[in-house]
Amino acid sequence: MVSDLPEVLIIGTGLIGTSLGLALVRAGADPVLTDQSVTAMTLARDLGAGRLGPRPGHEGEGSEPAPDLVVVAAPPDVTPSLVADAIARFPAATVTDVASVKGAIRDDLERLGVPLQRYVGSHPMAGRERSGAVAGRADLFEGRAWVVCADEATEPRSVRLVERVAAAVGSVVVPLSPTEHDEAVAAVSHVPQVAASLVAARLEHLSEDAVGLSGPGVRDVTRIAASDPGLWTQILAGNAGAVSAVLHELRDDLDALITALGELGTGVDADAPGARAVLARVIADGNAGHARVPGKHGAAPTAYTVVSVVVGDRPGELGRLLADMGEAGVNLEEIRLDHGLGLPFGIAEVSVLPGAAGHLRESLTEGGWQLHD
Amino acid sequence: MVSDLPEVLIIGTGLIGTSLGLALVRAGADPVLTDQSVTAMTLARDLGAGRLGPRPGHEGEGSEPAPDLVVVAAPPDVTPSLVADAIARFPAATVTDVASVKGAIRDDLERLGVPLQRYVGSHPMAGRERSGAVAGRADLFEGRAWVVCADEATEPRSVRLVERVAAAVGSVVVPLSPTEHDEAVAAVSHVPQVAASLVAARLEHLSEDAVGLSGPGVRDVTRIAASDPGLWTQILAGNAGAVSAVLHELRDDLDALITALGELGTGVDADAPGARAVLARVIADGNAGHARVPGKHGAAPTAYTVVSVVVGDRPGELGRLLADMGEAGVNLEEIRLDHGLGLPFGIAEVSVLPGAAGHLRESLTEGGWQLHD
Repeated sequence: MVSDLPEVLIIGTGLIGTSLGLALVRAGADPVLTDQSVTAMTLARDLGAGRLGPRPGHEGEGSEPAPDLVVVAAPPDVTPSLVADAIARFPAATVTDVASVKGAIRDDLERLGVPLQRYVGSHPMAGRERSGAVAGRADLFEGRAWVVCADEATEPRSVRLVERVAAAVGSVVVPLSPTEHDEAVAAVSHVPQVAASLVAARLEHLSEDAVGLSGPGVRDVTRIAASDPGLWTQILAGNAGAVSAVLHELRDDLDALITALGELGTGVDADAPGARAVLARVIADGNAGHARVPGKHGAAPTAYTVVSVVVGDRPGELGRLLADMGEAGVNLEEIRLDHGLGLPFGIAEVSVLPGAAGHLRESLTEGGWQLHD
Repeated sequence: MVSDLPEVLIIGTGLIGTSLGLALVRAGADPVLTDQSVTAMTLARDLGAGRLGPRPGHEGEGSEPAPDLVVVAAPPDVTPSLVADAIARFPAATVTDVASVKGAIRDDLERLGVPLQRYVGSHPMAGRERSGAVAGRADLFEGRAWVVCADEATEPRSVRLVERVAAAVGSVVVPLSPTEHDEAVAAVSHVPQVAASLVAARLEHLSEDAVGLSGPGVRDVTRIAASDPGLWTQILAGNAGAVSAVLHELRDDLDALITALGELGTGVDADAPGARAVLARVIADGNAGHARVPGKHGAAPTAYTVVSVVVGDRPGELGRLLADMGEAGVNLEEIRLDHGLGLPFGIAEVSVLPGAAGHLRESLTEGGWQLHD
């Protein structure tokens, strides 16, 4: 297949490397795959992610690839040495990596004395709960941010190469410095994971009756607490500095809250001057931060209007509701299901653009749906 | 309307009091409504929540009600004195309250020297983001837990009265001691709220590019951070002791994590003996707690199988998917929509019982849907 895409060598055929191969093949490229595990690289090849490069330990023998771009798709702790090797081995190539931490890897490369003109750190913000080549998907990167970290030292053509590949697999390029990247993912990804885990850990030893009082709030907060400990140990250790900085801020607020709660004691009518202001500030600051989280399409947050509808717990009931919404010409922005304890029905909270809510309520009522609000 | 339900006097016609009135009227009862605000009590009456009792300041004049059960539905800080008044004013009646904190109120009643045989603290686990009589709904309590706190001092007939009313409005009675209740809601409701707010607060001052990297994880964790500061100041202050105890535990884990991250420093290959074990334990403990959160219908958590389907961002597309699921005879347990950045489509992650997943995948593929996994 003829393609104007660069020649890409992918080092590491786990979830990200294999998905990148699949996406590039779909875009018309013919990437070369290597992995230190022969099983992993042949599996990725068998899945259609590209053709095989030299086996580990046999580099430089036979047909050495001549990539324009080398993508190191390996765990953070082995990434610096693999990048250093690739920079030395392919003197004409640009080398990027896709690790979820950027500053520490760049520091390591500097320490190793690696020339950095042809190195571009990057991070596609895409992942799954599952790992390995078999979990790979050609559309893993579609619509996801792909952070590209360049600086004055970086050759412009190297940056353009990485951006071209990111765009070819459907990603939106977001240029950030390594520090900006690490601070951003600490706040929007790593610290939320820590908080979810810490809250969930408090439920482990509760009585059955006590956890039975769980509602939609705690389910939302703890959903990602099901994450893999091995993977997250790597991620948190790799971004220890930035995660620690955000957690220090969080702990300062937590300490203030604990102190205020201590002053309030156990009496509902305790005076405790200033204590309630601390509580209110914690919640109000959370309001302000919550308002900054982008909604669907990565757009600025939109205040959707929620329409609550009673749906039976029978196959097709929700489908009928959403088909009726479609007939009314109203597009769904978000949907949440809230089921009662032991009840054969639930409430569907559908979020729509504010201008569409009135018409939707009318249409659904006419269609025999029971609304709340 | 003839009813075998007890005569109920509701003191406080906010969201909970009005909803209780509406639910009791629907169940065939004829509750009496009072509130210190004449506007609030007449509004609740106009909404159909019951008939008016004596106006505030006019108690004891004219037709004094003779309730079997008095429900104090007021904010925690005024609840003890209202309960004490009701116990004295209606010597034959059982008195309950619905405040979200139980131990502190019982302590206050003891301090006030109130005889506790006819007092039964309770807490319907139902609420909304909105407050006041206008937000009242007859089905607010359906399928929700209604915690009932009795002890050796409580007259059995008083406990049965509260349980009967709770059942009449569709709730599931959960007997707990005041301490058990307060500890449970601290862990499953109050601390998750605090954590969501603390995580969200970290996003307030991030750059637009940084918050733009937000994915589904941080959106889940911070969803309830939009809660009302005034309401939550009351709730947290009212349960200060139990919330503080859970937050202390959480802070111990957080401190250990921060220390471990400090030992790891900023190098991806730092040795730091023991530090990674701390990180892994935090995530693993979160796994164990997460597994205890009940799923739909208040049942023990079920491991659903997730089927991921590409859906277009057009009206009716999701409805068509769910209608097709209904035709396949498969019931939806959970649904999550995941939209990519700037893309005209999204991924619907539908959770179904594991036994139904294979059949569903086949049916949807036959129906022309593009699946992932």
